[in-house]
Order: sequence, then C-alpha cells, then structure tokens
Amino acid sequence: MIYIGVDYYPEQWERSQWESDVKLMKASGVNVVRLAEFAWSRLEPKEGAYCFGWLDDAIDLFASYGIDVVLGIPTMTPPNWLVEAYPDVLPQLDNHLGQPGVRGHRCYNSPSYQKKTRQITRQLAAHYNDHPAVIGWQTDNEFALLMCGCEHCTEAFHMWLKRTYGSLEMVNKQWGTVVWSGEYSSWSQIRLPKNHHTYFNPSFLLDYRRFQSESVTAYQHIQIEEIRKLCPTHFITHNTWADGTPLHHYELFKELDFASIDYYPNTSPEKVKTNPYSGALLLDRTRGMKQAPFWVMEQLSGPPGSWQNIWRAPYPGFIRAAAWQSISRGADGVVFFRWRTAAVGSEQYWHGLLDHHGVPGRRLEEFSKFSKEVGELSSLLEGTTVNNNVAILWDFDSHTSFKLQKQTEGLDFEEHVKELHRSLLRLGLGVDLIDPKVDISSYRLIIVPMLYVLTDETAAKLEAFVEKGGILVVTPRTGVKLANNQMRQDHLPGPLARCLGVRVTEYDSLGLEPHSIQHSSGIRYSAHYWSDLLELQGAEASCVHADQFYKGTPAVTKHAFGKGAAYYLGTFPEEAYYDALFADLSEEAGLSPMTSLPEGVQVSVRERDGVRLVFLLNMSRQTQTVPIEGSFVSQLSGESVQQKKQLEPYAIDVLTPAL
Amino acid sequence: MIYIGVDYYPEQWERSQWESDVKLMKASGVNVVRLAEFAWSRLEPKEGAYCFGWLDDAIDLFASYGIDVVLGIPTMTPPNWLVEAYPDVLPQLDNHLGQPGVRGHRCYNSPSYQKKTRQITRQLAAHYNDHPAVIGWQTDNEFALLMCGCEHCTEAFHMWLKRTYGSLEMVNKQWGTVVWSGEYSSWSQIRLPKNHHTYFNPSFLLDYRRFQSESVTAYQHIQIEEIRKLCPTHFITHNTWADGTPLHHYELFKELDFASIDYYPNTSPEKVKTNPYSGALLLDRTRGMKQAPFWVMEQLSGPPGSWQNIWRAPYPGFIRAAAWQSISRGADGVVFFRWRTAAVGSEQYWHGLLDHHGVPGRRLEEFSKFSKEVGELSSLLEGTTVNNNVAILWDFDSHTSFKLQKQTEGLDFEEHVKELHRSLLRLGLGVDLIDPKVDISSYRLIIVPMLYVLTDETAAKLEAFVEKGGILVVTPRTGVKLANNQMRQDHLPGPLARCLGVRVTEYDSLGLEPHSIQHSSGIRYSAHYWSDLLELQGAEASCVHADQFYKGTPAVTKHAFGKGAAYYLGTFPEEAYYDALFADLSEEAGLSPMTSLPEGVQVSVRERDGVRLVFLLNMSRQTQTVPIEGSFVSQLSGESVQQKKQLEPYAIDVLTPAL
Amino acid sequence: MIYIGVDYYPEQWERSQWESDVKLMKASGVNVVRLAEFAWSRLEPKEGAYCFGWLDDAIDLFASYGIDVVLGIPTMTPPNWLVEAYPDVLPQLDNHLGQPGVRGHRCYNSPSYQKKTRQITRQLAAHYNDHPAVIGWQTDNEFALLMCGCEHCTEAFHMWLKRTYGSLEMVNKQWGTVVWSGEYSSWSQIRLPKNHHTYFNPSFLLDYRRFQSESVTAYQHIQIEEIRKLCPTHFITHNTWADGTPLHHYELFKELDFASIDYYPNTSPEKVKTNPYSGALLLDRTRGMKQAPFWVMEQLSGPPGSWQNIWRAPYPGFIRAAAWQSISRGADGVVFFRWRTAAVGSEQYWHGLLDHHGVPGRRLEEFSKFSKEVGELSSLLEGTTVNNNVAILWDFDSHTSFKLQKQTEGLDFEEHVKELHRSLLRLGLGVDLIDPKVDISSYRLIIVPMLYVLTDETAAKLEAFVEKGGILVVTPRTGVKLANNQMRQDHLPGPLARCLGVRVTEYDSLGLEPHSIQHSSGIRYSAHYWSDLLELQGAEASCVHADQFYKGTPAVTKHAFGKGAAYYLGTFPEEAYYDALFADLSEEAGLSPMTSLPEGVQVSVRERDGVRLVFLLNMSRQTQTVPIEGSFVSQLSGESVQQKKQLEPYAIDVLTPAL
Repeated sequence: MIYIGVDYYPEQWERSQWESDVKLMKASGVNVVRLAEFAWSRLEPKEGAYCFGWLDDAIDLFASYGIDVVLGIPTMTPPNWLVEAYPDVLPQLDNHLGQPGVRGHRCYNSPSYQKKTRQITRQLAAHYNDHPAVIGWQTDNEFALLMCGCEHCTEAFHMWLKRTYGSLEMVNKQWGTVVWSGEYSSWSQIRLPKNHHTYFNPSFLLDYRRFQSESVTAYQHIQIEEIRKLCPTHFITHNTWADGTPLHHYELFKELDFASIDYYPNTSPEKVKTNPYSGALLLDRTRGMKQAPFWVMEQLSGPPGSWQNIWRAPYPGFIRAAAWQSISRGADGVVFFRWRTAAVGSEQYWHGLLDHHGVPGRRLEEFSKFSKEVGELSSLLEGTTVNNNVAILWDFDSHTSFKLQKQTEGLDFEEHVKELHRSLLRLGLGVDLIDPKVDISSYRLIIVPMLYVLTDETAAKLEAFVEKGGILVVTPRTGVKLANNQMRQDHLPGPLARCLGVRVTEYDSLGLEPHSIQHSSGIRYSAHYWSDLLELQGAEASCVHADQFYKGTPAVTKHAFGKGAAYYLGTFPEEAYYDALFADLSEEAGLSPMTSLPEGVQVSVRERDGVRLVFLLNMSRQTQTVPIEGSFVSQLSGESVQQKKQLEPYAIDVLTPAL
Repeated sequence: MIYIGVDYYPEQWERSQWESDVKLMKASGVNVVRLAEFAWSRLEPKEGAYCFGWLDDAIDLFASYGIDVVLGIPTMTPPNWLVEAYPDVLPQLDNHLGQPGVRGHRCYNSPSYQKKTRQITRQLAAHYNDHPAVIGWQTDNEFALLMCGCEHCTEAFHMWLKRTYGSLEMVNKQWGTVVWSGEYSSWSQIRLPKNHHTYFNPSFLLDYRRFQSESVTAYQHIQIEEIRKLCPTHFITHNTWADGTPLHHYELFKELDFASIDYYPNTSPEKVKTNPYSGALLLDRTRGMKQAPFWVMEQLSGPPGSWQNIWRAPYPGFIRAAAWQSISRGADGVVFFRWRTAAVGSEQYWHGLLDHHGVPGRRLEEFSKFSKEVGELSSLLEGTTVNNNVAILWDFDSHTSFKLQKQTEGLDFEEHVKELHRSLLRLGLGVDLIDPKVDISSYRLIIVPMLYVLTDETAAKLEAFVEKGGILVVTPRTGVKLANNQMRQDHLPGPLARCLGVRVTEYDSLGLEPHSIQHSSGIRYSAHYWSDLLELQGAEASCVHADQFYKGTPAVTKHAFGKGAAYYLGTFPEEAYYDALFADLSEEAGLSPMTSLPEGVQVSVRERDGVRLVFLLNMSRQTQTVPIEGSFVSQLSGESVQQKKQLEPYAIDVLTPAL
Repeated sequence: MIYIGVDYYPEQWERSQWESDVKLMKASGVNVVRLAEFAWSRLEPKEGAYCFGWLDDAIDLFASYGIDVVLGIPTMTPPNWLVEAYPDVLPQLDNHLGQPGVRGHRCYNSPSYQKKTRQITRQLAAHYNDHPAVIGWQTDNEFALLMCGCEHCTEAFHMWLKRTYGSLEMVNKQWGTVVWSGEYSSWSQIRLPKNHHTYFNPSFLLDYRRFQSESVTAYQHIQIEEIRKLCPTHFITHNTWADGTPLHHYELFKELDFASIDYYPNTSPEKVKTNPYSGALLLDRTRGMKQAPFWVMEQLSGPPGSWQNIWRAPYPGFIRAAAWQSISRGADGVVFFRWRTAAVGSEQYWHGLLDHHGVPGRRLEEFSKFSKEVGELSSLLEGTTVNNNVAILWDFDSHTSFKLQKQTEGLDFEEHVKELHRSLLRLGLGVDLIDPKVDISSYRLIIVPMLYVLTDETAAKLEAFVEKGGILVVTPRTGVKLANNQMRQDHLPGPLARCLGVRVTEYDSLGLEPHSIQHSSGIRYSAHYWSDLLELQGAEASCVHADQFYKGTPAVTKHAFGKGAAYYLGTFPEEAYYDALFADLSEEAGLSPMTSLPEGVQVSVRERDGVRLVFLLNMSRQTQTVPIEGSFVSQLSGESVQQKKQLEPYAIDVLTPAL
C-alpha cells in the first residue's frame, strides 16, 4: 500500500473542529496521519500524570474514517515542568539555543532526559500497541548534531574515547596532541570546546562529531527498544532533515524499518534551474540511507517561512509534481506538512494545505489530485523499487572532516556532489548515493567525490571494483586523510594511486581564481577552486591544465586497470565537462544515457517482477518535449506514448511499456 | 515664546571659560539652555552627599544673561559608586552592554535604581523649584527598550502577566503555548530569553516588548511624580530618539506636557533625495505623539560621528534649514546639541556649534542667523499649530509585531511608511502620524500602512470613517494578527474586508523578485516584496498584477462604501504610483495637491486665528522655483511673493497671505 | 656569518626519521635550526619532571652535522597539566579563545604563569648554556596583545594606573571621566571591559592597550632575565608577527639583541601588485624596530593555510626571491618555517619545504639554491647594514588610538602607510620606518603619516628638523590628540601648524565619496576619505580642492621654514600624486630617485666600509629591464652590468660597483 497523508495537531485546534477536518481529509484522499510528535505537555501535563484521552479520541475519530495513524514520540520538545525539575536536560551550546520555550532544547547524554524519554515512550507504546489504526512510530523529530559541551557529554566522551582507544596514550598518539603541547596527562583534561574555533586539533574535532552523532543514535535506541518490545508489529522510522551539520544517517537508520525525510523543495523561480535536481539528490540520498524505499514524512504543502522570509507561493502544479517526484524516486509514503496552517506559536508562517482562513484552495486541490492518482496506481506501485547501475559515494567521515578544514574558497562538499548528480540526471541516469561501506559490486559506474578520509579497506574495494570491469571516477582531495584525521603521508590520491595510475606531486589552491583545462579534442572547459599537479604513472592524460605555471601538464587522466578503467580529475571542471564525460562513460559502462533530455525533465524508474514504471517529470516552467524510445502507455491518461511526449510545466506522467 | 538654545555641559569645562561661553551664546541669540542631564556623579559624588553649588553658579550665570534653563534628570548615567553599591542596577542583556563607564547601564525594574532615581529627582526638584531661570525638566535621556532578562524584570513580568491575563491558564491560551509543548505549569517557568531567537513564541515576544515598554513608562513616572509635586509650574518633557527598537511613544508622553525629539538629519549628499523627507517624517511623528506642538531637544549642530564614522560636513545653509524645518512642522523650542564639541569622553566627534578649537565659524553663524530670524517672527509664531486633513496610522503593536517575524526580504515597516509620507509631501500635503486609538473623524484621507495587528475596534472605527465620507487606503499585511499576536483566521484583510470589498485568497512573498502591476489606464508600475491574490467582493479593480501566474487578477481595488471610498493595495508599488494615487485621492477628498512642487521642496503651514504662516523650504542642493497660487508677503525679506518663488539651495521662506 | 636554516619539530616525528632529515638539511645548505618552541609538554611532561634527553639527542645530532641551534622558550603553549593545576593561567577574553588545546591560552599577568615561565626558562637556560651548538634563544612565540579582563589583569592595571597617574583624581582628570558620570570614587570601580564597545571612554581604552602591551614586555622580561644570567654569550630575540592588534614593538625589542619577524608574503597573483611592497614594508618596519639588522625567524616555505583557505602554490622563483628580499632589506638570518609539513595537529596545511609525502620537490630546490648563493656571498654580506636618508614615522600611540575611533569609511592606518612607502620604493629610495622618539637628524626627508597623537616634544623635534634644512611631509589627522587621548583644543595640525604655515578650520569626512584635487600645474588627482579646509598662515597652496562646497580652497600646501620646507596634505590623494610629489621632494633633498624603475622591481642597498651591495629584485611575473647608472659587477653571475639589467620573473641580482 502507498500511504498518502498529512501531519495533524489535534491539540492545537478546538475539538469541535476535528471532525470537519477529518471528513475533509478523507474526501481529499488522506489514508494516513502523523500525530503527537510535539505534544508531550499534553500527554504528560505534570510528571507521571499521563493524559492520553484526547489522543485516544483523535485516533478513534481517524479510525472511524479508515485513516491510519503514525505516532511521533514527542521528545524534541521537553515540557517546561521537565526542564524545571531536571535542568541538566538543557544542552550547553555556544550559541545559547539551549533553553525551553523553543524546541530541541535537550542534551542527548543527559541521564534525566534519557530516563524521562524511556518513560514517555513506554507509556505511549503500551497504550497504543493494540490500537488497530496505529501502524507505526516516528522517533523524535529531525535529529540534529548538538555540539553540547555539558558535563554529561564530557563524561560520555571520555567513556567513548576509552572504548575507542583504550588508553590516554593512544588518544595522544591518534590525535597527534604533541603539537602545541596539547598532550593529556589525565582524562579530566579532555574538555569539550566552548566554541568551535578552527585552531582546534582536527583529529579531536572529528572524533567529537563522531561521538555526538553516535550519541544521537544511542539516544534513539532507547525509544526503539521500548517500542519494539511493546509493538512488535508496528514499523519505526525517523524523519531526518539531512542538511546542516553532518549526522551519520547510515548509522541512525540501521535499527529502523525504513528511512524518512522531510522534503521542502524550494518554490523560488530563480532557483528552478538547480533546485529540482537538489530535491532529487535529497530523495536519492534518503533512499541510499538504507538502500531501500522510504517515506517522506513532511512533504511541501505550501510556502514555508516561519523562521526566515516566507517562500514564494508554489507555482501551479508544483506541489503535485514535487510529491510525484518523491514517489518516483522511491517513496512508499508521502505525508504532507501540514493540514492546517498554525494560528499560534512559532510556525505561523509554515503554510499547510489549508490557509489560516481554512477555506480549501488550489493547494488542497493539488493534493487531492495527487492522492487520487496515487490511489489509482497503488496496485502497480506496490512492491516496486528503484534499482540503479550508477552510484556516488557519500561518506560521513569525509563530509564531516572536510567541513572542519576549509581548504579553498568556493569549494563545498555538498555543491560538488550536486553538480555530479545533476549531470548524471540530465543524462536520464538513475543514481544511488551510498555509504562506501556497502557492497558495490552490482554497479557499473561509481563516482567518488572528494573521498577526503580514505581507508585502505575502501581503497581496496574500489580497486577490486575496477579490476573486475567497473568504471571509477575520482575527484580531487581524495585520500588526504587517515581515519584518525591525520594526514596521509604518501602521494595523493594515496592508496588509490595505483589503480588510477597517477600521483599528485603538488597542488594549487585556486579559490575563486579563473582556471581552465583543455580536452585532447581541443575543447576548453573552465574549472574551479583547485588544481592538482599530476605525474602519470601508467595513466594517460585526457585533459591538460590550460593556464598557470603548470600549463600543459595533465589535468584529467584515464587508466585502464584490470577489466575496467579509472579516471582521475585533477580539478573541478564546469558541469558541461561532466556532461560529456558521463555520457561517454555511461556508454562505456553499457548504460543508455539520454543526451537529449530537456532541462528540468527528470526520469526515474520503479520496478518489480513484471512491472516497470517509468516516471517522466517536467520540473521546469517551460513546456518540454521528451524523446521516447519504444512504445509506452500512460498510466495516468491511458494514452499510448511513442517517439515523444510533451509535458506542460510541472506536468508528470507514469508510463509502462506497451505490450 | 519660541525657545532657541543649546545643550551645555558646564561640568566638562573649566569654570574660567563659562562666562565667555555664556556671553557668546547670548550674542548668538540663545534664550534657553539644557543642563545637567549626565551630571549625576557631580551632583551626588558619593551616596547622599549632594553638591549642587556648581550648578547653582552656572544657572545663576545664565539667569544673569536672561537665559532660561531646562534641567535634565541625569539618570541615564548612574555613577560608578551607585553601580558598585547596588549591582542589581545593571541590566542583563545578551550583548553585554550593561556595564558602567558607558551610559544606559540600568535596569528600569531594579528596585535600587528606582529608589536612587526618586531620591536624586526629589533633591533636584526641591532645590530648583523656585529658581526663576528654571522653566522645565527633561526626564532621563533617550529612553530605549531594554531587553533585560534579570530577576527583577522576570518578577515584574510575572506581575504584568497576572495583571493582564489573570491566570496561567489564560497565558497559555493567549500565547498558544500548546505548540511545541511550551505550556507553563508554574509561573516560575516563564523565563526571559537569553537571546532573541526567532524560534520563540511570537505572542510571548510581543508581550515581552509591551512589558518592557511599559517598564520604561512606569520608571519615568517616578521622575514625573516627584517633579510635579515640587515644581507645579514647570513643564516636563522627555527627549526621545524614535528609532531602533520600538517604544510606545504614545504612552511614554501621556503624562508629559509635550514631546521632544533629538533630531539629526543626515548631512550626506548621497542621501539628500530621501533624507529631508525622512526628517520631516520624524518631526511629523513627534508632533503626532501628543497631537500637539513639541520641542527639538537636540538639533543638529555639526557632523555627528562618535560611535561610527564621522558624518559629512554640513553643506552651507543645511544647519539653518534643518532648524527651520523643525519650526515649520510644529516645534516651539529648538535646542542645539551642542555648544562646544567635547574634548574628553566618548563623544569627542559629535560636533557642536563650536569646534574643538573654539573659534566661531560658519556653523555658529548659521545658528545666529536662524535664532535672529525666529526672534523676529516670534510674535507671529506663538500659538500657531499645524492642522492637517491627511493622516497615516502608526501603530506600536503592528510595528513591534512586524519586526518579530520577518515576512519577506526587503520589506520594512519604517521604509514603507517613509515612501507613503514622502509621496504625500511631494504633493504639498500636510500629514499627521497618529495612534490608531485617537479620534480620526476630522481627517479626510487616512492611510493605513501594514496594520498588521488589527483589533475589531480599530476596524470598526475605520469602517465608520469611510461610511461617513472618508477616503481610506490600506496596504498589504493589514489584519494579519489579533492583539495577542495569534493569526486571525478569517480572510485578510480581516474585519476590514467588508469595507474594502475585497478578500485575499492567497499571497506570494516576492522578496526581491521583480514584479509589476498595470493600471486600468494602461500605465505599468513596478511593485515589490509581496503580492496578494484578491477576490473582489464588491470592489472594482483599478490595477491588475502584470506578471506571475496570477497575471491579470486584481492588484489594487476601490470600493465605494457609504459616503466614502476604500482602496486596497495588494502589493507595494513604486512611489510614482503613490504620487498618482494620492494626487487623485486628495482631489477627491477636496484637498489641493501641488503636483508641480519641485523635488526636495517642502511646504508646511502653522496657523491660529487670524494668522497663517506658510513655510517654504528648499531642502535640495539645486535652486528651485516653487509655483505660488495667490498673493503672499515674505516675513523674512518683506517682499511680495506671487506666481512663483525662487529658492537657492537650502533657502527657506515664511509667507503670510497678502492682505 | 649569515644564518640560513629551518624550523624543525623533532618531537613531531619518529626518531628514526631524524637523521635522514638532518642529512638532507645539511645537503640543502642549512646552517641553523630553531627547535622546541612549542614542546613544553615534552620538556616537562608533569610538573617539575623535566625531560630534556630527547632534545639533547636532537641537538647533538645537529651539532654532529655542524648545524647551530636556536632554542625557543615554549611558553606560548602551556601544557594541559599546567592549566588544570593553575586555572588562573587562562585569560578571560570576550571571544572565548582562552582555553587549552590550542595556543596562546595564557594571561601574561597570571602569577602562576609567570612562576612556571621562570622555572622552565631557568631549567632550559641552565641545561643548554654550554652546549656548543646552541647560539641563541627565542622568547615565546609571536606575542600578541591580549585584551584579558581577569582579576590579575585588573589588579595589575590598578597598579599601572597608580604608577602612571599617582592618584584616582588624576585618572579622572586625564581620562575626562566627568563625561556621562564616569568618575571613579574608588580604585575598585575601574573594571576591565567584557567587550570592546566604542561607547567606552577613549582615554581609558588607549591606556588599557598601553598597559596590556607593557604586560607583554614585562612578561618577556622574566625570560630574558633568566637567560641572560645563565647564558651570557647567547643572543636573545623574539619572533614577532607585526600585524593585527598593535603591540609596542619598540619597547618589546629594547632588551633583546635583535628583532625577528615571521614573514609570509602572499603568494596570490591578484595581490602581486601590492604584495611585494607590503612585504618590503614589513621588513623595513622590522629593521626599524631596533634600527639594526634583524632575523626572519619564519620565512615562507610553501603555501600557508591551516586556519583559513590554503594559499596559492608559490610561483616558480617566488620562494627564493622572497628570501633574498629579506636579506636585501637587512636580515642577517633567514629561518624557513618549516622543514616538513605537519601530519598531525592544527597546522596540517601550513606547508613546509617538504610536502606531506616527503619527496624533495621544487620548493626545497629553491631553498637550496638560495642557501648556496648566500653562502657564497657570506663574506661580502657580513657586517653590512642598510642606511637610508628617508624615514616614515610609525607611532604606536597614534596607530593604537586611531584604531579605537573609526573616523571615516575606508581610511586605514596601515594602508595609508603602505601607499606612502610603496611610492617611495617605486622611486628606488630606501626608507626607514622609525619611532618618533629616535634621533631623526640624519634624515633628509621625513614623512609623517597621521600622527594622530602628537606630543609637543615630537612637534618641536620635527620643527627643528625642518628649520635645519629637512623636508617634512605631514598627512591629515595629525595632531588631533594629546597623549592622554583627549582632543587637542588648538587648530589642527596643532603644534605643527607654525612650521607648516597652515591651519585646519574645518574638515569633511568624505568616506567613500569621490573627491579630487587640482595641482597648480593643472593636473587633477583623485583623493579619498577626508578633506581638511585650510587657512594659509604663511604657506602657499600647491593643490586646491577641485569639488565640494570648498572647491578652489587649498588642499596641499608648502611652507618654506628655516632652511627646509614643510608640506601639508589636506586629503589622501591617489598614489600617482605621491609619486610626483616624492620625486620632486627627493630631488630637493639631494637624493637620486629612479623615476623609471619598472613596476615590481625593488632596489635595496647594504653597505659597510669598502663594500656596497646593490640588490635588484624583480618581484613581478613579467620580465623587467632595470636602467643602470654606472658600472657594476654581478656577484651571482660574475657578469659586468652596465646601462641596463634584464631580470626574468622573480629573478634577483646582487651588484657591486665595478672597480
């Protein structure tokens, strides 16, 4: 079953309004709602006094309309009484956010908070484990890395270090504390920083982030443990946010049944060129978190904007198209945030499907259309998954470490991945974003963007991948660091040098200085941020640097290795170069790139035995014509589709091969 | 009597210099000085030991030259001994400004500070209540909203909430604390924020600002109470600053005899286009604070600049013209800050009429010319007031609430009012800036800019105004909030929708995206920041949106209602549109707009029975020719003025109708 | 002997690697190394337990290769055990930097820190006073002004004030605390600020900085005292940084044998125009700190960049040219930072001569070439000094005070001096940067840039200089302040007005507004930031203001005074004007300006009896031809040089007059 629904906060509305809301939801095609994720103060108004009656009533009401319920554990918002009674719940952050009245004011390592979390989770799980409408749970809300420096965190960090390194001597060695007399002679000297100045030891900083990311996962485990015990048939997920400070999502979702994401594609026209691709990347990343279908737990309903400027009003069709985009890239559930726009509190301008005035308008219309369409395709969609031949590695360690040491002006980890991903999408290729730790043997083309922290294990796996016939593309700043965030002391790209047949003798941090490279065909491409000076060791140069004192030296190299080939990029070229390169390489890998796909049109495929659904989405504001090879049938209109398919702005279609 | 004078700090100069200063003041036309506003450490060098002798001597000296004295209560600068003895005087602010050695380092809710304030005020009032030269008092100096979070403020806030809402249940309800489990179960849980993050509950934030604004007024009451008791014949005023964090000036001045303002028009040429209008707006706002004549307690004497860059040297004539501008818009007293430029302390670069070298120059010359002119027109000016037919509402709640939730990039409350006001001034119309709470029945045209917080009472009053024949213009974001800063849940513009004959079905936060509208005449105007999507409910569209997906739908509407008419602007058009609209509407209202007034020329009228003074000011750096209807006599030159009047840069004239 | 060497950190590398490093150093021409400057935790791993064995071994190893050693006192990095045992060591700074794990986490006024400093210094001095390889010492590392506000600093400041002013009455008088009731009635009321807001009293702020600068010097004295006692034959120096917060370098180096600087010329091409001149200025300033030859203790080895973006890869020849630049301007020792690039800790991206991969490349090649060349010229270079006829005054008080009160947008003390210095260098003139307190009688041309704080003594000395035939150039904002940072109350330029024959009646803070002046020849020059309105009092105008309301009034004046001439600049003209002016004035002063020196080429002379070495450096990326008057011999190539000398990019030559 494909779930389509909304987030609803019965506690924020007059009870007299509930039923008309639910009736309208039902009529609009809602089959699931998420409830209670911020309602701790209503569920436990004072310590130990649980009040679930109102939620019982709400759930019963939904049940009576045949709508299923996902319950949120409301731990992102500890109530005032809790904070007053257990002040250690508040985190100690440099930017002072850690105070009640807002949200997220909790230290994951606080024993009091952990205890109260276990209690409220157990109560909820015990109460709702047999309600027929309740199908699953959401842990907390949008976990974030908290750089808390409280005493509980400090102690927990000491324990973490003891587990990880065994001794203080080993900590000193792994962190290289000998520099600047930073050696510790007692555990108590290891203090958490009050600010995050770049002067700090980078090995320490990376471990501090790893520890805090693990603190989130460990904290979440409390909730999972209680729910699993009492609700063995319910699913458990978490709605991540996947932006800002890096969190180890692969670890975070390990214990969960599926991943969920909160998806707010930007409605601004000036960002239309890049934005629908960014959205696709976020959805692909979410699918990659567990290499499986996922849910969108908060899908765009209207212009967000409570904490900053309100976003643009969504263009007609945008809301529906973005929801279909979620489905097309692997979502099995799409829950819109939110039903009604809040009249009170901090989120007054995070617009829902209904405006403050509550009169249904074009936003609810688009939702209804989408839910109806999905409902009709439900039997086709069920059980289908997205299976790709191309992967981009997204490494938590590299991402985190890279953010700690700014190398050059303009270079950004996320933006670099976006460019690579966008280029692949423009070729109609499906791409997985994956943890370097997973099995990669089924892919044909793997892109390795800035694998800054490179272990020998990963290097060996990638080398084996090429040896067996895979095609590998590696970009600069790969192999710079050891896992302990010390510098590797071999030539870059370190243990991948052999497979790539090239080594970096020196580098030039270009920042925003203009640079260009020249392909052996004579075509010039602009390039950015960084130049590696390369020495060929078996590879051949396909591009050379076209300026600077190293003009004419290799800039991009290709190395036939085993049955495969390995490409090294010694700079960050413009996207046109990626387009050309990936068109060639995907051909080489036996894939079928669509070189004439119009700008903004996205293709995705979901399939299972006997079923192949091709999604065509026009995420642009121009009417676009998509070339079609073969013969298809539109599952939305029933029409036959051949040669080409014209799509109005934000139009979408779902095709199946004609018999 | 019209008072012209200077601010003087005898305590900062050698006593031997006093008499030559006073003699030169007298010769320059000074008839009043303000003294002692920062002199607490000299008036009470240690606790309870009052030393008024030096001030007696100074006042006697002024008296001997026939110069009157306004005394400042020096409470903005608590001395070091006071802060050391009563540390609770220091406010607890997020930005750490609350420390001695500067100024403004005081918490209005500190009991110690309130006690010491009462004592020093009583001593001064008792000592000077019968000095013939002393004519009045200034409370404190430039009161500002202090977002102090100390324990005294916290307690006072709890009391304020109890008075306002009665119970904690009502606080929870009015603030909508149910969101994010922010419900309070004890008063002690209501804490003042350590920072002012936008995550905070907006209802709480608005009340916190209301409370702090009322704390200022309550604190000022201590001073007023003591002075009134002991000096029943003296006037009391306060010199406000009227910029930065909103303060409820209507309340602040309620107990005072008249309002005063510190007026520093910008001397920079690149701001000449907008600046003299901004200055006019500030003066009009000051007049509106009590709907009465006012004083300028600090008038520009030279380039300010102690805390930032020094401003440009004033252009020849600028100082005199700006002083006449104050008179023309209702000032009955103009006191220049300051006589001599400080040689010591933090204000070394806030230039007075005399430079550091003390040799009279062109700045003192301009002052002398101004004071002589005013002296000669004194009998004509006395008793005249400014009476207008056009008003702009300036609402404390809306201004404050708007600043708490940034809606869209570029939109600014003050700038929006400036544009409206500037357009009216270019038409030669006098405009009052008024509290929505006052009687509005005497106006013919009322502009309602972003009345974001709209009560039913105000809406009813405005509707009645139109019904009886008034012309009303309403701009976007009106009627968004209830008084408790919750969202209104009817269609915008809420309770004004009936009178305006239109409702907002949706809106588009444009930010800095370009937009335009088209008038029914075919003329296009650019517009900014925001679009309302309108549904006509009786009104007719005079402009439509000229782009975006709602192209062709109404953008500006007119509704004949009762004997009047109500206009709704569904976007923020460029000023040219306001110029055209207000020219039409003022004609419609029976006023006489001057459509050919040159840029930068300002007209103002002061009148009383039998006297009508028309002020013409050329606030530009070009020679301008003003068209004149009727026959006038210049009170400055004695010349007859007909058909037109030529004004050199920064020239001014005062005309009376020819007999 | 000219010392050429590297900074080395044996404690950061495996002992097994030491000897191969030393061998390669020897082969590359290293004759000195600096050691141990950050190694406190290795030299004293726990309190009182000194471990010098490893350092003994390292020094012995260097000695065995004939390499001398400079030892750093490692006090910039107090170990964790020390901070834990004596928490008062940590400074209390507004920006929270004061915590261990980084560096510079020490309050100079902490008694514990001073005690531990004396102990470690004594131990090191006692241990190494007779090692034949040890030739000298470096105190601490890159002293910086710390605006610490701890209790020890507060007490020390009170003592400093008592010594300086005698009484609290005098403090009140000198600081002008009467303003804003800031008068102190007890010493305890004088608190150090928690932030550095410009509201603070400027006299207090200047004294606070003087005190903190003297705290550094007093702290350094502890180290000097211990070393002098035990190592009477060793030299002592300090490696200053000479950027950022002003430090009184003239005082800091008074007790030391010579000054040292850490010199990192910028490798970025877009800064090539100005950068080699900025570098020359830094070296000239360093020479001026003691008016004597100096060392570069850290010379650029590769791209820096640990704390921000990595710099550009040095252009071929740049590293060698910059090192020769140091020699040419007076360095007798050049020590490169650093040998190997760090693999651990915070400085992983501050590149040394060897990369992380450790394979010698072009950076080490350039070093070797340089060291070989210096070695060959060593006997010629020894004992030579730089002697100039032109000086620019660089005043600690003026620099410091100017930074406290921003006068106008765009104006910057350092940038102004850079422009003046650059213009003189383009004329091939050698320039000294000197303390106004030194003997100036030997100069012929003296430039006085913004001598903001001007004492009567300095004014008298400058007047006497002109009277006796000197040529003086004074720029705006000279003579504004008294030594106590109060305003002077005479006309600017205060006590220099007589000698300059001009006075400033008013000024105009232009900021970024365009301005221009016109020379009597008719040529127009753009000018910036500031205009003085001048009244001639004996001087004649050579330029007039060419716009603004004071158009046509004097802008630059010349006054024949005694046997000399004094020029006043009433604005900040573009550099082309300085070029023309200084060409004329240096002719007038009997010097020989080289008006056809190509852009980027720098000339410097070192000399002693019988030896005159002329250095030609092409610091540009174009091949340049330098006109040569007379007949010379290249000491590098042995070739004869006449009429002209062609220099490739970053080429250098050392010429001696042909016999």
